[in-house]
Amino acid sequence: MKILVLGGDGYLGWPTAMYLSERGNDVAVLDNFAKRRWEMELNVEPLIPVHTLHDRVKAWREVSERSMNLFVGDLRNYDVVKDALQTFKPEAVVHYGEQPSAPYSMIDHTRAVFTQTNNIAGTLNLLWALRDYAPDCHLVKLGTMGEYGTPNIDIEEGFLEIEHNGRKDLLPYPKQPGSIYHLSKVHDSHNILFACRAWNLRSTDLNQGVVYGIDTDEILRDERLATSFHYDEVFGTALNRFCVQAVAGIPLTVYGGGGQTRGFLNIRDTLRCVELSILNPPRSGEYRVFNQFTEMFNILGLAELVKQQAEKLGHKVSIEHLENPRIEAEEHYYNPRHQKLIELGLVPHLLSDVLVTSMLSRIQEHGNRIKRDIIQPHVRWKRSPASPDGRSSAQAGISTASE
Amino acid sequence: MKILVLGGDGYLGWPTAMYLSERGNDVAVLDNFAKRRWEMELNVEPLIPVHTLHDRVKAWREVSERSMNLFVGDLRNYDVVKDALQTFKPEAVVHYGEQPSAPYSMIDHTRAVFTQTNNIAGTLNLLWALRDYAPDCHLVKLGTMGEYGTPNIDIEEGFLEIEHNGRKDLLPYPKQPGSIYHLSKVHDSHNILFACRAWNLRSTDLNQGVVYGIDTDEILRDERLATSFHYDEVFGTALNRFCVQAVAGIPLTVYGGGGQTRGFLNIRDTLRCVELSILNPPRSGEYRVFNQFTEMFNILGLAELVKQQAEKLGHKVSIEHLENPRIEAEEHYYNPRHQKLIELGLVPHLLSDVLVTSMLSRIQEHGNRIKRDIIQPHVRWKRSPASPDGRSSAQAGISTASE
Repeated sequence: MKILVLGGDGYLGWPTAMYLSERGNDVAVLDNFAKRRWEMELNVEPLIPVHTLHDRVKAWREVSERSMNLFVGDLRNYDVVKDALQTFKPEAVVHYGEQPSAPYSMIDHTRAVFTQTNNIAGTLNLLWALRDYAPDCHLVKLGTMGEYGTPNIDIEEGFLEIEHNGRKDLLPYPKQPGSIYHLSKVHDSHNILFACRAWNLRSTDLNQGVVYGIDTDEILRDERLATSFHYDEVFGTALNRFCVQAVAGIPLTVYGGGGQTRGFLNIRDTLRCVELSILNPPRSGEYRVFNQFTEMFNILGLAELVKQQAEKLGHKVSIEHLENPRIEAEEHYYNPRHQKLIELGLVPHLLSDVLVTSMLSRIQEHGNRIKRDIIQPHVRWKRSPASPDGRSSAQAGISTASE
Repeated sequence: MKILVLGGDGYLGWPTAMYLSERGNDVAVLDNFAKRRWEMELNVEPLIPVHTLHDRVKAWREVSERSMNLFVGDLRNYDVVKDALQTFKPEAVVHYGEQPSAPYSMIDHTRAVFTQTNNIAGTLNLLWALRDYAPDCHLVKLGTMGEYGTPNIDIEEGFLEIEHNGRKDLLPYPKQPGSIYHLSKVHDSHNILFACRAWNLRSTDLNQGVVYGIDTDEILRDERLATSFHYDEVFGTALNRFCVQAVAGIPLTVYGGGGQTRGFLNIRDTLRCVELSILNPPRSGEYRVFNQFTEMFNILGLAELVKQQAEKLGHKVSIEHLENPRIEAEEHYYNPRHQKLIELGLVPHLLSDVLVTSMLSRIQEHGNRIKRDIIQPHVRWKRSPASPDGRSSAQAGISTASE
C-alpha cells in the first residue's frame, strides 16, 4: 500500500515509516524540520544522535533495500500538501505533522498561537486537499488521550450515547483538554469529523496515550536509524524522562502529588496500532476514534517503578515532588475504554521490569550526552507564582525562549 | 463602566457600541476593517451606505455628546490587543472581532484556513493578554447557536449533565457545527473554557441565533449612524435576505426543503443581551454560556411570512426552493433552551408583522441600491456538483473570489 507519513522526521514518524516500509508498503515521508528548530530555540537535543532525515532515508535503503520518497515542506503551504498527494498518490496518510508538546504551547502567547494555528492550518489544508485530490485516501490522524481531560465518568472511544429528557443520540464525547496544545488536537478532531461528514472522507483519529521507549526492531538494525528520544521538560514524556533522571543521578521529578493517572504505551505498539488502523480502514464518510494506549499508571507509581529497577542496576535514585507547573487534577477518576484496537488484533507490549531495565541500559550507553539542566520544569501553566496572586510578576517561561 | 467593543465597525459591533455608550458607559471600539476588504473581494456591499468608523464615531459624538475611543488594529497582532487593554483598561470586552460568515469560510481552502486561524489567533491573543494585563475584565464573546448543530436531544446552555454507567458529571455540551466558520467558534469556546479554568478569567459565551433587523434607536437618530445591513449570499442572513428579495421582485431563495429550524432574534435584543451579560458578570474563573435567541422558525416558514407581508404592501413575491448549497439536515429535531437571558431580564422583541413591514419599507427606500446578482448562492459546501460524483469538476465557489 502507498502510505505517506507526515512528520516523518519525528520521534514516532520515523519509526512508523520504517515499520510500514519493512512490511512491504511503499512509504513516503514528509517533514519541514520544524522540531529541529524548536530544539535549537530551547537548546535541547535528543539523547541519541539523530541523523538528518535525508541520511536516514539513505541508510534505510542500504540496510533494508527498500526506498522511501522524501518530501520537504510545510503543511501550512497548501501547494506542499497538494503536490505530495498528487505526486505520491497515497492510499493512506499517517499524520504526525504537528507541534507535539504541551509545555511548548504554554511558554508564551507567540508559541500558544503558533501551536494552534500551525496544527489547525496544516490539518485543514490536508482535509481540503484530500477532498479535492484523494477523496478515498484514509487519514490516520494522531490525536491524544489528553483531549478528554479527566471527566468523572467513563471515557468512551470518541463518541458517547447520551440519553437526555427521554431522547437519545450518539454524540462526540465532550472534551476538556488541559493545555493549548491539547486544545489544538480537539480542534483538529472537530474539523476532521466535519470533513468526513461533509465530504465523505474517511479517517481514524488515534487518541494516543503517553508513549515510552527508545527502540524498535528497525531502529536496532543500524545506529544511523535512531529516532529522537527526548528527556527534556518540553519534549520529553514522563517515563522517558524518569529513566534519564535515574541514570543521571538526578531526583525523579514528580509534578505535584503524582496521583495523575494516564494511559501509556510502548513505541512498538504505536507502530502496530497505526498499521492495524491502515489494514482495517473506515468506510467512506466515517470518522472513528480509537483510544490508543495499553495500560494505565499514575505518575508517582511510574516513578517508583523506575526507581526500583534503577536501584537494581546500582543507581542511587530519589523521587522529588515539585510544585505542579501544570494545571491538572492530581487525584481524579479515570476509566477510559481502549477496546477497539485490541479487537483489531493489538497484542500489547506491556511495561515490564525487563523493558525498563533495557531502557536504562540504553540510556547509560549515552549517559555522557545527558544535559542535566534541561529536565527541571520551567514552563508554567499559570504566570510565575513569584507574586502572591500569581499574576503581576515578570514574564514566566524559559528565559532562552524569547523571540 | 469601561467597555471595549472588538469588531466595532460591524453589523452588530457598531450598534452595540452606541447602545452601551448611550447608557452611560465609557465605550471604545476596535476594528481592522477586514470586513470592508472582504466586501471588496466579493464585490458586495451593505444595502444602506455605511460611513467609515472614524466618521461614525465623530457623528455619534455630535448626536449624543458622548465620545468613544477608537483603536485601529488586528487582533492577530498581540501588541494591538495588549495596547488596547493597557491604554483603555476595560472592565468588559465585547468580542465581535471575527470573520462571521459560514459561506465565506467555505469558498476555498485559503479562506477556510484564514477563517479558523484568524478567529482563533485573535481570541487566543485576547485571552493571553487578559491573563497578563486585565485578569478581572469580563470577556463577552459572541459565539453561535450553530456550534451545537442539530442533535437529536434537547440543547442545553453550554453544559450537559451526563449520567453514564452509574456516574455523573457536568460536561461541555457536545458540538457538531456545520461549517468551517462554525467550527472556529467551537474552537474558541474550548479555548475560552480552558482560559477560565486555568487562569481564572471570567467569560460569557453568547451562542447567538440568526440576527435580523436594520435599525436600533441609536441608528435612527442620524443617517450617518447606519450599520452594515447585508443581504448577499455570503454575509446576508436569512430573514434580511428574504426581505430584500421581496422588495427587489426576486424569488425568495429557500435552500432545499426549508425545514431547517433555527433560533432568531432582533438586533435590538442582541444589544440588550450583551448589556444584560455585562450587568450580571460571572465570577472569576467562571465560563458560562447563554443561548441567545428569542424564537424559532424554519426557513420555509420565514419565507412564507415575508411573502405574506410583502404582498400586503403590493409586492409580487414567489418562493423558490434551490438545491441546498450547504450540508445540513433539512428535517430534524430542534429544542434548544434559552432561559438564562430571560431570567436576567430580557424582554424579547418578537418578530411581528409590523416589524417585517417596517423592514420592507426601509429596504424600499434604498431599493435602487440592491445588487440583484449577489444574492443567489454560489458557494457550495461540497465541490461543484457539475460532475456526477461531485468531486472531479473545476474549482467550486465564486469566480470573483480568487487570490
